[in-house]
Amino acid sequence: MARKSFPLSKVYSLLEPGPVVLVTTARHGYPNIMTMSWHTMIEFEPPLVGCVISNSNYSFGLLRVTNECVINIPTVEIAEKVVGCGNTSGAKIDKFETFRLTPMPASEVGAPLIEECYANLECRVADTKMVSKYCLFVVEVIKASIDTTVKNPRTIHHLGSGSFMVAGEKIKLKSKMK
Amino acid sequence: MARKSFPLSKVYSLLEPGPVVLVTTARHGYPNIMTMSWHTMIEFEPPLVGCVISNSNYSFGLLRVTNECVINIPTVEIAEKVVGCGNTSGAKIDKFETFRLTPMPASEVGAPLIEECYANLECRVADTKMVSKYCLFVVEVIKASIDTTVKNPRTIHHLGSGSFMVAGEKIKLKSKMK
Repeated sequence: MARKSFPLSKVYSLLEPGPVVLVTTARHGYPNIMTMSWHTMIEFEPPLVGCVISNSNYSFGLLRVTNECVINIPTVEIAEKVVGCGNTSGAKIDKFETFRLTPMPASEVGAPLIEECYANLECRVADTKMVSKYCLFVVEVIKASIDTTVKNPRTIHHLGSGSFMVAGEKIKLKSKMK
Repeated sequence: MARKSFPLSKVYSLLEPGPVVLVTTARHGYPNIMTMSWHTMIEFEPPLVGCVISNSNYSFGLLRVTNECVINIPTVEIAEKVVGCGNTSGAKIDKFETFRLTPMPASEVGAPLIEECYANLECRVADTKMVSKYCLFVVEVIKASIDTTVKNPRTIHHLGSGSFMVAGEKIKLKSKMK
Protein backbone atom coordinates (compact mmCIF):
# COMPACT_ATOMS: atom_id res chain seq x y z
CA MET A 1 0.00 0.00 0.00
CA ALA A 2 1.38 3.35 -1.07
CA ARG A 3 -0.61 6.01 0.74
CA LYS A 4 0.65 9.50 0.00
CA SER A 5 -0.22 12.99 1.05
CA PHE A 6 -2.61 14.71 -1.37
CA PRO A 7 -2.67 18.52 -1.83
CA LEU A 8 -5.53 20.24 0.01
CA SER A 9 -5.99 22.53 -2.99
CA LYS A 10 -7.09 19.52 -5.06
CA VAL A 11 -9.49 17.92 -2.59
CA TYR A 12 -12.45 19.35 -4.54
CA SER A 13 -11.58 17.09 -7.48
CA LEU A 14 -12.24 14.03 -5.29
CA LEU A 15 -15.62 15.11 -3.90
CA GLU A 16 -17.08 17.29 -6.67
CA PRO A 17 -18.06 14.27 -8.85
CA GLY A 18 -20.43 13.19 -6.05
CA PRO A 19 -19.23 9.76 -4.87
CA VAL A 20 -20.78 7.87 -1.99
CA VAL A 21 -18.38 8.22 0.96
CA LEU A 22 -17.80 6.50 4.27
CA VAL A 23 -17.55 8.84 7.25
CA THR A 24 -15.60 7.55 10.22
CA THR A 25 -15.83 8.90 13.74
CA ALA A 26 -14.48 7.59 17.05
CA ARG A 27 -14.98 8.05 20.76
CA HIS A 28 -13.25 6.43 23.72
CA GLY A 29 -11.40 4.15 21.31
CA TYR A 30 -14.59 2.89 19.61
CA PRO A 31 -14.74 3.79 15.92
CA ASN A 32 -17.83 3.94 13.77
CA ILE A 33 -18.59 4.16 10.02
CA MET A 34 -21.49 5.90 8.27
CA THR A 35 -22.41 5.82 4.58
CA MET A 36 -23.08 9.30 3.18
CA SER A 37 -24.17 10.66 -0.19
CA TRP A 38 -25.40 14.12 0.75
CA HIS A 39 -22.31 16.30 0.62
CA THR A 40 -21.00 19.26 -1.37
CA MET A 41 -17.82 21.28 -1.66
CA ILE A 42 -18.31 24.76 -0.20
CA GLU A 43 -14.82 26.25 -0.57
CA PHE A 44 -11.66 25.32 -2.49
CA GLU A 45 -8.98 26.19 0.07
CA PRO A 46 -8.98 25.58 2.88
CA PRO A 47 -11.35 22.89 1.60
CA LEU A 48 -14.75 23.16 3.26
CA VAL A 49 -17.33 20.42 2.78
CA GLY A 50 -21.01 20.53 3.67
CA CYS A 51 -22.17 17.15 5.04
CA VAL A 52 -25.78 16.26 5.81
CA ILE A 53 -25.78 13.70 8.64
CA SER A 54 -29.20 12.86 10.02
CA ASN A 55 -29.58 13.07 13.78
CA SER A 56 -31.06 9.57 13.63
CA ASN A 57 -27.55 8.30 12.85
CA TYR A 58 -25.27 7.09 15.62
CA SER A 59 -22.46 9.07 13.96
CA PHE A 60 -24.35 12.33 14.48
CA GLY A 61 -23.74 12.20 18.24
CA LEU A 62 -20.10 11.16 17.83
CA LEU A 63 -19.42 14.03 15.44
CA ARG A 64 -21.25 16.48 17.71
CA VAL A 65 -19.06 15.56 20.68
CA THR A 66 -15.67 15.00 19.04
CA ASN A 67 -15.89 17.52 16.16
CA GLU A 68 -13.68 15.24 14.10
CA CYS A 69 -14.24 12.74 11.30
CA VAL A 70 -12.60 11.21 8.25
CA ILE A 71 -14.29 11.20 4.85
CA ASN A 72 -13.17 7.98 3.14
CA ILE A 73 -13.90 7.41 -0.55
CA PRO A 74 -14.66 3.80 -1.50
CA THR A 75 -14.74 2.17 -4.95
CA VAL A 76 -17.04 -0.43 -6.46
CA GLU A 77 -14.88 -3.31 -5.19
CA ILE A 78 -16.30 -2.77 -1.69
CA ALA A 79 -19.83 -1.68 -2.69
CA GLU A 80 -21.43 -4.43 -0.57
CA LYS A 81 -19.59 -3.23 2.53
CA VAL A 82 -20.70 0.35 1.77
CA VAL A 83 -24.34 -0.75 1.64
CA GLY A 84 -23.83 -2.82 4.77
CA CYS A 85 -22.55 0.24 6.65
CA GLY A 86 -25.61 2.18 5.41
CA ASN A 87 -28.06 -0.43 6.63
CA THR A 88 -26.77 -0.96 10.15
CA SER A 89 -26.17 1.15 13.24
CA GLY A 90 -22.97 1.65 15.17
CA ALA A 91 -25.12 1.68 18.29
CA LYS A 92 -25.56 -2.07 17.84
CA ILE A 93 -22.53 -3.42 15.99
CA ASP A 94 -18.83 -2.79 15.38
CA LYS A 95 -18.93 -2.05 11.64
CA PHE A 96 -15.17 -2.45 11.13
CA GLU A 97 -15.45 -5.98 12.50
CA THR A 98 -18.78 -6.90 10.87
CA PHE A 99 -17.80 -5.72 7.40
CA ARG A 100 -14.10 -6.59 7.66
CA LEU A 101 -12.80 -3.12 7.08
CA THR A 102 -9.40 -2.08 8.40
CA PRO A 103 -8.97 1.00 10.60
CA MET A 104 -5.69 2.89 10.28
CA PRO A 105 -4.62 5.71 12.59
CA ALA A 106 -5.12 9.19 11.15
CA SER A 107 -2.41 11.79 11.59
CA GLU A 108 -4.53 14.79 12.62
CA VAL A 109 -7.79 13.45 14.07
CA GLY A 110 -8.96 10.72 16.46
CA ALA A 111 -11.22 9.01 13.89
CA PRO A 112 -9.55 6.25 11.86
CA LEU A 113 -8.89 6.04 8.12
CA ILE A 114 -10.39 3.06 6.27
CA GLU A 115 -7.55 1.22 4.55
CA GLU A 116 -9.83 -0.25 1.84
CA CYS A 117 -10.76 3.27 0.61
CA TYR A 118 -8.51 4.90 -1.97
CA ALA A 119 -8.78 8.41 -0.51
CA ASN A 120 -9.00 9.62 3.07
CA LEU A 121 -9.82 13.17 4.13
CA GLU A 122 -9.22 14.05 7.77
CA CYS A 123 -11.70 16.69 8.87
CA ARG A 124 -12.50 19.01 11.74
CA VAL A 125 -15.96 20.53 12.19
CA ALA A 126 -15.80 24.20 11.18
CA ASP A 127 -19.39 25.39 11.55
CA THR A 128 -22.42 23.90 13.30
CA LYS A 129 -24.91 26.74 12.75
CA MET A 130 -26.91 24.70 10.20
CA VAL A 131 -26.95 21.51 12.27
CA SER A 132 -30.11 22.05 14.28
CA LYS A 133 -32.22 23.04 11.27
CA TYR A 134 -30.71 20.93 8.46
CA CYS A 135 -28.30 18.44 10.11
CA LEU A 136 -25.73 20.15 7.88
CA PHE A 137 -22.16 20.19 9.23
CA VAL A 138 -19.50 22.33 7.59
CA VAL A 139 -16.19 20.48 7.99
CA GLU A 140 -12.70 21.56 7.01
CA VAL A 141 -10.37 19.04 5.43
CA ILE A 142 -7.07 19.44 7.27
CA LYS A 143 -5.14 16.47 5.83
CA ALA A 144 -5.73 14.40 2.70
CA SER A 145 -4.06 11.21 1.51
CA ILE A 146 -4.60 8.80 -1.35
CA ASP A 147 -3.54 5.32 -2.34
CA THR A 148 -1.37 6.08 -5.35
CA THR A 149 -1.62 2.52 -6.66
CA VAL A 150 -5.29 3.13 -7.56
CA LYS A 151 -5.00 4.66 -11.01
CA ASN A 152 -8.64 4.69 -12.06
CA PRO A 153 -10.88 4.76 -8.97
CA ARG A 154 -14.33 3.40 -9.89
CA THR A 155 -16.32 5.39 -7.37
CA ILE A 156 -20.00 4.62 -6.78
CA HIS A 157 -22.85 7.14 -6.95
CA HIS A 158 -26.18 6.44 -5.28
CA LEU A 159 -29.32 6.48 -7.44
CA GLY A 160 -31.57 5.50 -4.53
CA SER A 161 -32.83 2.24 -3.01
CA GLY A 162 -29.51 0.40 -3.37
CA SER A 163 -28.98 1.24 -7.04
CA PHE A 164 -25.65 2.77 -7.89
CA MET A 165 -24.00 4.28 -10.93
CA VAL A 166 -20.36 3.25 -11.24
CA ALA A 167 -17.90 5.87 -12.51
CA GLY A 168 -17.50 5.42 -16.27
CA GLU A 169 -15.21 6.81 -18.94
CA LYS A 170 -13.34 10.10 -18.61
CA ILE A 171 -13.52 12.96 -21.07
CA LYS A 172 -11.43 16.12 -21.18
CA LEU A 173 -12.68 19.41 -22.61
CA LYS A 174 -10.87 22.71 -22.94
CA SER A 175 -11.94 24.79 -19.98
CA LYS A 176 -10.94 27.73 -17.82
CA MET A 177 -12.80 26.22 -14.88
CA LYS A 178 -10.87 25.12 -11.79
CA MET B 1 -40.27 15.19 -26.87
CA ALA B 2 -42.16 13.52 -24.05
CA ARG B 3 -41.66 15.63 -20.94
CA LYS B 4 -43.59 14.31 -17.97
CA SER B 5 -44.10 15.32 -14.39
CA PHE B 6 -41.69 13.58 -12.02
CA PRO B 7 -42.59 12.90 -8.36
CA LEU B 8 -41.03 15.33 -5.90
CA SER B 9 -40.38 12.43 -3.52
CA LYS B 10 -37.89 10.99 -6.04
CA VAL B 11 -35.98 14.16 -6.90
CA TYR B 12 -33.12 13.05 -4.62
CA SER B 13 -32.40 10.16 -7.01
CA LEU B 14 -31.56 12.66 -9.76
CA LEU B 15 -29.21 14.86 -7.74
CA GLU B 16 -27.69 12.48 -5.19
CA PRO B 17 -25.28 10.90 -7.75
CA GLY B 18 -23.63 14.33 -8.12
CA PRO B 19 -24.09 15.37 -11.78
CA VAL B 20 -22.99 18.71 -13.16
CA VAL B 21 -26.15 20.80 -13.57
CA LEU B 22 -27.16 23.94 -15.45
CA VAL B 23 -28.95 26.52 -13.33
CA THR B 24 -31.23 28.90 -15.18
CA THR B 25 -32.45 32.24 -13.88
CA ALA B 26 -34.29 35.12 -15.57
CA ARG B 27 -35.07 38.77 -15.02
CA HIS B 28 -37.06 41.19 -17.13
CA GLY B 29 -37.36 38.55 -19.82
CA TYR B 30 -33.59 37.94 -20.06
CA PRO B 31 -32.63 34.38 -19.11
CA ASN B 32 -29.21 33.19 -18.01
CA ILE B 33 -27.46 29.84 -17.53
CA MET B 34 -24.82 28.84 -14.99
CA THR B 35 -22.86 25.60 -14.73
CA MET B 36 -22.83 24.20 -11.19
CA SER B 37 -21.23 21.19 -9.52
CA TRP B 38 -21.38 22.18 -5.87
CA HIS B 39 -24.78 21.01 -4.70
CA THR B 40 -26.24 18.51 -2.23
CA MET B 41 -29.62 17.19 -1.24
CA ILE B 42 -30.61 18.47 2.20
CA GLU B 43 -34.11 17.00 2.63
CA PHE B 44 -36.15 14.33 0.80
CA GLU B 45 -39.59 15.95 0.81
CA PRO B 46 -40.27 18.67 0.20
CA PRO B 47 -36.97 18.32 -1.66
CA LEU B 48 -34.42 20.85 -0.42
CA VAL B 49 -31.14 21.35 -2.26
CA GLY B 50 -28.07 23.24 -1.08
CA CYS B 51 -26.45 25.14 -3.99
CA VAL B 52 -23.15 26.97 -3.79
CA ILE B 53 -23.25 29.86 -6.27
CA SER B 54 -20.30 32.23 -6.07
CA ASN B 55 -21.12 35.91 -5.82
CA SER B 56 -18.74 36.44 -8.72
CA ASN B 57 -21.34 34.79 -10.98
CA TYR B 58 -23.89 36.88 -12.84
CA SER B 59 -26.53 34.33 -11.75
CA PHE B 60 -25.89 35.14 -8.08
CA GLY B 61 -27.53 38.55 -8.44
CA LEU B 62 -30.41 37.20 -10.51
CA LEU B 63 -31.15 34.52 -7.93
CA ARG B 64 -30.85 37.02 -5.08
CA VAL B 65 -33.45 39.29 -6.65
CA THR B 66 -35.91 36.79 -8.16
CA ASN B 67 -35.59 33.93 -5.64
CA GLU B 68 -36.33 31.50 -8.46
CA CYS B 69 -34.29 29.17 -10.63
CA VAL B 70 -34.43 25.90 -12.53
CA ILE B 71 -31.87 23.13 -12.01
CA ASN B 72 -31.47 21.41 -15.39
CA ILE B 73 -29.55 18.14 -15.66
CA PRO B 74 -27.54 17.71 -18.87
CA THR B 75 -26.00 14.57 -20.34
CA VAL B 76 -22.70 13.98 -22.13
CA GLU B 77 -24.23 14.78 -25.54
CA ILE B 78 -24.12 18.50 -24.66
CA ALA B 79 -20.91 18.47 -22.56
CA GLU B 80 -19.29 21.16 -24.73
CA LYS B 81 -22.23 23.50 -24.18
CA VAL B 82 -22.03 22.83 -20.42
CA VAL B 83 -18.35 23.82 -20.40
CA GLY B 84 -19.15 26.83 -22.57
CA CYS B 85 -21.74 28.02 -20.04
CA GLY B 86 -19.16 27.58 -17.27
CA ASN B 87 -16.52 29.63 -19.06
CA THR B 88 -18.59 32.67 -19.98
CA SER B 89 -20.66 35.30 -18.20
CA GLY B 90 -24.30 36.18 -18.71
CA ALA B 91 -23.26 39.77 -18.08
CA LYS B 92 -21.65 39.72 -21.52
CA ILE B 93 -23.48 37.21 -23.69
CA ASP B 94 -26.84 35.52 -24.15
CA LYS B 95 -25.87 31.93 -23.39
CA PHE B 96 -29.03 30.40 -24.87
CA GLU B 97 -28.16 32.03 -28.17
CA THR B 98 -24.39 31.51 -28.05
CA PHE B 99 -24.60 27.82 -27.16
CA ARG B 100 -27.78 27.09 -29.10
CA LEU B 101 -29.80 25.89 -26.15
CA THR B 102 -33.59 26.10 -26.19
CA PRO B 103 -35.52 27.85 -23.41
CA MET B 104 -38.95 26.46 -22.57
CA PRO B 105 -41.41 28.14 -20.22
CA ALA B 106 -41.53 26.66 -16.72
CA SER B 107 -44.86 26.12 -15.05
CA GLU B 108 -44.10 27.49 -11.57
CA VAL B 109 -41.18 29.92 -11.92
CA GLY B 110 -40.04 32.72 -14.21
CA ALA B 111 -36.75 31.05 -15.15
CA PRO B 112 -36.86 28.83 -18.25
CA LEU B 113 -36.29 25.09 -18.58
CA ILE B 114 -33.53 23.98 -20.95
CA GLU B 115 -35.07 21.63 -23.52
CA GLU B 116 -31.78 19.83 -24.21
CA CYS B 117 -31.57 18.66 -20.56
CA TYR B 118 -33.35 15.42 -19.64
CA ALA B 119 -34.52 16.64 -16.21
CA ASN B 120 -35.73 20.04 -15.05
CA LEU B 121 -36.31 21.02 -11.42
CA GLU B 122 -38.19 24.26 -10.82
CA CYS B 123 -37.01 25.82 -7.58
CA ARG B 124 -37.79 28.61 -5.17
CA VAL B 125 -35.20 29.93 -2.71
CA ALA B 126 -36.10 28.64 0.77
CA ASP B 127 -33.29 29.95 2.97
CA THR B 128 -30.61 32.60 2.43
CA LYS B 129 -28.99 32.54 5.88
CA MET B 130 -25.84 30.86 4.55
CA VAL B 131 -25.50 33.08 1.49
CA SER B 132 -23.36 35.87 2.92
CA LYS B 133 -20.83 33.52 4.53
CA TYR B 134 -20.75 30.58 2.10
CA CYS B 135 -22.73 31.64 -1.01
CA LEU B 136 -24.92 28.64 -0.11
CA PHE B 137 -28.57 28.90 -1.14
CA VAL B 138 -31.13 26.41 0.14
CA VAL B 139 -33.73 25.99 -2.62
CA GLU B 140 -36.94 23.97 -2.59
CA VAL B 141 -37.88 21.98 -5.68
CA ILE B 142 -41.55 22.76 -6.30
CA LYS B 143 -42.02 21.05 -9.67
CA ALA B 144 -39.98 18.38 -11.45
CA SER B 145 -40.23 17.02 -14.97
CA ILE B 146 -38.21 14.60 -17.07
CA ASP B 147 -37.87 13.61 -20.69
CA THR B 148 -39.18 10.06 -20.55
CA THR B 149 -37.53 9.14 -23.86
CA VAL B 150 -34.11 9.30 -22.18
CA LYS B 151 -33.78 5.81 -20.73
CA ASN B 152 -30.17 5.85 -19.63
CA PRO B 153 -29.06 9.44 -18.96
CA ARG B 154 -25.27 9.64 -19.22
CA THR B 155 -24.75 12.47 -16.76
CA ILE B 156 -21.36 14.14 -16.42
CA HIS B 157 -19.43 14.61 -13.18
CA HIS B 158 -16.69 17.22 -12.88
CA LEU B 159 -13.21 16.05 -11.88
CA GLY B 160 -11.72 19.53 -12.18
CA SER B 161 -10.11 21.60 -14.96
CA GLY B 162 -12.49 20.45 -17.68
CA SER B 163 -12.12 16.73 -16.99
CA PHE B 164 -15.36 14.85 -16.49
CA MET B 165 -16.40 11.35 -15.50
CA VAL B 166 -19.32 10.09 -17.56
CA ALA B 167 -21.93 7.98 -15.76
CA GLY B 168 -21.07 4.31 -16.27
CA GLU B 169 -22.77 0.99 -15.57
CA LYS B 170 -25.49 0.53 -12.97
CA ILE B 171 -25.44 -1.98 -10.16
CA LYS B 172 -28.21 -2.92 -7.75
CA LEU B 173 -27.59 -4.17 -4.24
CA LYS B 174 -30.08 -5.25 -1.61
CA SER B 175 -30.58 -2.28 0.66
CA LYS B 176 -32.98 -0.72 3.14
CA MET B 177 -31.71 2.74 2.21
CA LYS B 178 -34.05 5.21 0.57
